Amino acid sequence: MAIPGRFPASFTATVGKRPAPVQPPSNMPAAYDQLVAKLKRAHTLGTVADLLGWDEQVNLPADSADVRAGQHAVMAETQHAAATDPEIGRLLAEMETPSGALSADELVTARHARRDYDRATKLPADFVTEKAAHSSRAYHAWADAKARDDFAAYAPFLEKHLVLAHREAELLGWGARPYDYAIDRHDPGMTAAQITALFAELKRGLLPLVSAIRASAVAAQPQLFRGFPVESQRAFLREVTERLGFNYRRGRIDVSLHPFCSGTGADIRMTTRFDADNPLDSLFSSIHETGHGLYEQGLPLTQLGTALGQAVGMAIHESQSRLWENQVARGRAFWKFFEPRFRALFPAQLAAISSDALYLAVNAVEPTLIRVDADEVHYNLHILLRFELEQKLFSGALAVRDLPAAWNALCGEMLGQTPASNREGVLQDVHWSSGGFGYFPSYCLGNMVAAQLWATVRRTLPGLEEDFARGDFGRLLGWLRENIHTQGRRHDTLTLVRRVTGEELSPQPLLAYLRERYGGLYLK
Amino acid sequence: MAIPGRFPASFTATVGKRPAPVQPPSNMPAAYDQLVAKLKRAHTLGTVADLLGWDEQVNLPADSADVRAGQHAVMAETQHAAATDPEIGRLLAEMETPSGALSADELVTARHARRDYDRATKLPADFVTEKAAHSSRAYHAWADAKARDDFAAYAPFLEKHLVLAHREAELLGWGARPYDYAIDRHDPGMTAAQITALFAELKRGLLPLVSAIRASAVAAQPQLFRGFPVESQRAFLREVTERLGFNYRRGRIDVSLHPFCSGTGADIRMTTRFDADNPLDSLFSSIHETGHGLYEQGLPLTQLGTALGQAVGMAIHESQSRLWENQVARGRAFWKFFEPRFRALFPAQLAAISSDALYLAVNAVEPTLIRVDADEVHYNLHILLRFELEQKLFSGALAVRDLPAAWNALCGEMLGQTPASNREGVLQDVHWSSGGFGYFPSYCLGNMVAAQLWATVRRTLPGLEEDFARGDFGRLLGWLRENIHTQGRRHDTLTLVRRVTGEELSPQPLLAYLRERYGGLYLK
Repeated sequence: MAIPGRFPASFTATVGKRPAPVQPPSNMPAAYDQLVAKLKRAHTLGTVADLLGWDEQVNLPADSADVRAGQHAVMAETQHAAATDPEIGRLLAEMETPSGALSADELVTARHARRDYDRATKLPADFVTEKAAHSSRAYHAWADAKARDDFAAYAPFLEKHLVLAHREAELLGWGARPYDYAIDRHDPGMTAAQITALFAELKRGLLPLVSAIRASAVAAQPQLFRGFPVESQRAFLREVTERLGFNYRRGRIDVSLHPFCSGTGADIRMTTRFDADNPLDSLFSSIHETGHGLYEQGLPLTQLGTALGQAVGMAIHESQSRLWENQVARGRAFWKFFEPRFRALFPAQLAAISSDALYLAVNAVEPTLIRVDADEVHYNLHILLRFELEQKLFSGALAVRDLPAAWNALCGEMLGQTPASNREGVLQDVHWSSGGFGYFPSYCLGNMVAAQLWATVRRTLPGLEEDFARGDFGRLLGWLRENIHTQGRRHDTLTLVRRVTGEELSPQPLLAYLRERYGGLYLK
Repeated sequence: MAIPGRFPASFTATVGKRPAPVQPPSNMPAAYDQLVAKLKRAHTLGTVADLLGWDEQVNLPADSADVRAGQHAVMAETQHAAATDPEIGRLLAEMETPSGALSADELVTARHARRDYDRATKLPADFVTEKAAHSSRAYHAWADAKARDDFAAYAPFLEKHLVLAHREAELLGWGARPYDYAIDRHDPGMTAAQITALFAELKRGLLPLVSAIRASAVAAQPQLFRGFPVESQRAFLREVTERLGFNYRRGRIDVSLHPFCSGTGADIRMTTRFDADNPLDSLFSSIHETGHGLYEQGLPLTQLGTALGQAVGMAIHESQSRLWENQVARGRAFWKFFEPRFRALFPAQLAAISSDALYLAVNAVEPTLIRVDADEVHYNLHILLRFELEQKLFSGALAVRDLPAAWNALCGEMLGQTPASNREGVLQDVHWSSGGFGYFPSYCLGNMVAAQLWATVRRTLPGLEEDFARGDFGRLLGWLRENIHTQGRRHDTLTLVRRVTGEELSPQPLLAYLRERYGGLYLK
């Protein structure tokens, strides 16, 4: 799919192969540099807003939410003014001429700048205001409905969000494919048709594996993990994440209710949470955020604010967090190195837990109704369910009032369990309350990309896991830096996967990986 | 002295006594509300910039200073645009008519808004840029010169700052009194002539007291304080500052290299630092910052961004921090309540330290060449010295190249010691390196105001120290809230002192307080 925008076809078609003109118009570099300065200015304002968001989750005093809301509002207005600066439009128009002499990299920046500028300027101010106001109301309605387990109270807000999503797609020229627009916002270039095919193939392979594991007598024993002091947990995860390659001279990790990663590679702010009786949760959520952080730290610093210094999309971002969290840190080689260090920090707590029991706990598989609690095997089913329902909501095949019944039926079919309440069902996720449709698929696509990259890098770099067993993760990070991180947005999701792995994106590497790791543990 | 600005004389002369016009022009309230919205917007952007500054001191990763500098630059530009919004000028002009129907409070807002707007708009952009760039260069030159003890390398930067200060005063219509302008920036309405008279009187009374204490055989023994665990220090200062009245639901305290207090009453960010062998440093710096924080928390929240929600100036601000730090927390009543709690937290560390020795350590007097290490008695002499030199630099009576010799001579005269190096002398303070002339006097004025308020409140509220001995500081805080905090900028420094204490600002209450407290300890 072509990136929407006003570039002449020749601009995108000739990327990377056009010869330099003999006489480049002398105003071109100046215009490009001016554009970059404008983009960087808007980006910098965005990083300030991000820091407000980080501080809100990590530091904000209990009663200071009002002042933070006011700060967010003024910064949003300021950011919007910077992103819609008419000078950006003028500079883009100046560059979008057949005589333009931009390099391939410069074209990447200009093409994405055009798309972002159009999206920022084509939406009427009253639409933006209406959507922001509705999102705020809908968020509170969702939180309240979830607390009271009252879907009917939330339904009108969700209905209105669907109307707004259709209207937004219409305004931006995506009226015929509103759900594709929702997907494109998170993974530029991806479509629902592509995802449908990938997910169907994944589902066919996944359900038999899930059934087999469920029938297994093997089970992890998380209840054995008790009384791990937070300070020692903190020391351990710091050592782990530093050894994976996170640069703490350009980032930090703090505590928040829900783990997240924000900031840019110039200053990454990760968070985690601690539970003395669940040390693996804190460890793996930290490694997950470290994967996001390593991606951001690997983007070219000098290009921050342009598409060359920006992550491809959510699927590739999620592939980085999942690869470090799952393929690497749930693997035997990782634990060969780190288990002695873990036991040295917690000798008494781990005394009764064998190496096999520890490794099984790291790879526990247990069905749950809650997506964020799901293990690697079940997680994808939670996403397939949401993707199917989102499509039906967008096509009108499913009315919002019928959503809980449809959710519960699909749960029974896919997870073998039915929620006893909407709180554990359709009301569990925050995403839709802010109109965040089209985001869920990225999680599962990320799992696929991670497994495909993992299969490629193991082929490409023999002995990689022997490195891990010695505590050396440098070759893996170097490979990701070269092939993914430093690429910025030069390639869209599917192109990048094809270039790096030599194959089209496919669920087969994920299925093979899951069968190998979990088959080995549960289906002996 | 009149506040500079374009208000007709009748506006300021009739504050608080003008009868309401029979027919107020209907556009007035609308214009005032619009002005307030503009002022609040600029203020909010300022609070975002403040948070960047706080985060820089508390959280910033080691190598992320570059990204923070970029964020500061964009926010400064954004703030300046908000503060010079031509709409503010139009609204002020609309209100500045003889038919204006503003209330007394509204006039306070409008008068200060006019002064701030003029100062923000009358300085040419190239002057502002030149000063900012020079301040940055001069800061690094100062830090480098201090490290190498090389005043000559720093002298040209200081000379240029003096030229810029004169030029700035000229541009703003203060050309005849450039040093008064420097003072007015920190304490609106105060003049060098007023301060000269106050400081001369203070010096006459202070020098005999200093001589007498220096001749005393009594001496505190700070070396007895060893091995106070940081976590327990943190718990103690949290209990103390909470009991003094700091609202931790609208503020927090963290660790930074140099203690400070930033933010607004809606979200106060204080910092301290810990040294296991100097628990009193951390405690008293925290109480000092708490005094600043209590002032900000006492300003009317709904008026934040207008002069009604703004501190009077640095002298009054410093009076609040000093009153809590010195008059209250170095007093016997405070320790009557807190000593048992302090000993309960540190039983072993305090075992060999008697109550008298503890109280003497709290009130240690020891001459030092370094201002920030100075005790309450000597501190004022450090300020008198700087005030005298600043005046001579501004009048041209003293050349920058002769400054070290003049500094050392005054040190010998006032402190009885001469610095062995400029690092311990004229290069010790950061203020001048950013052009911060006229700031030092506020510290000493703050000490005077604190003592004068203290004398007044002890007369007004009998039994106040008995409250303290029971751990109750509510009546003092309530009195400060009513008389100082909630007043915002309704009155300038001298007027506020006169209204609250019934007397003109004078150094006599400070001298009486110092004689009572330190005479009692050292001159028995």
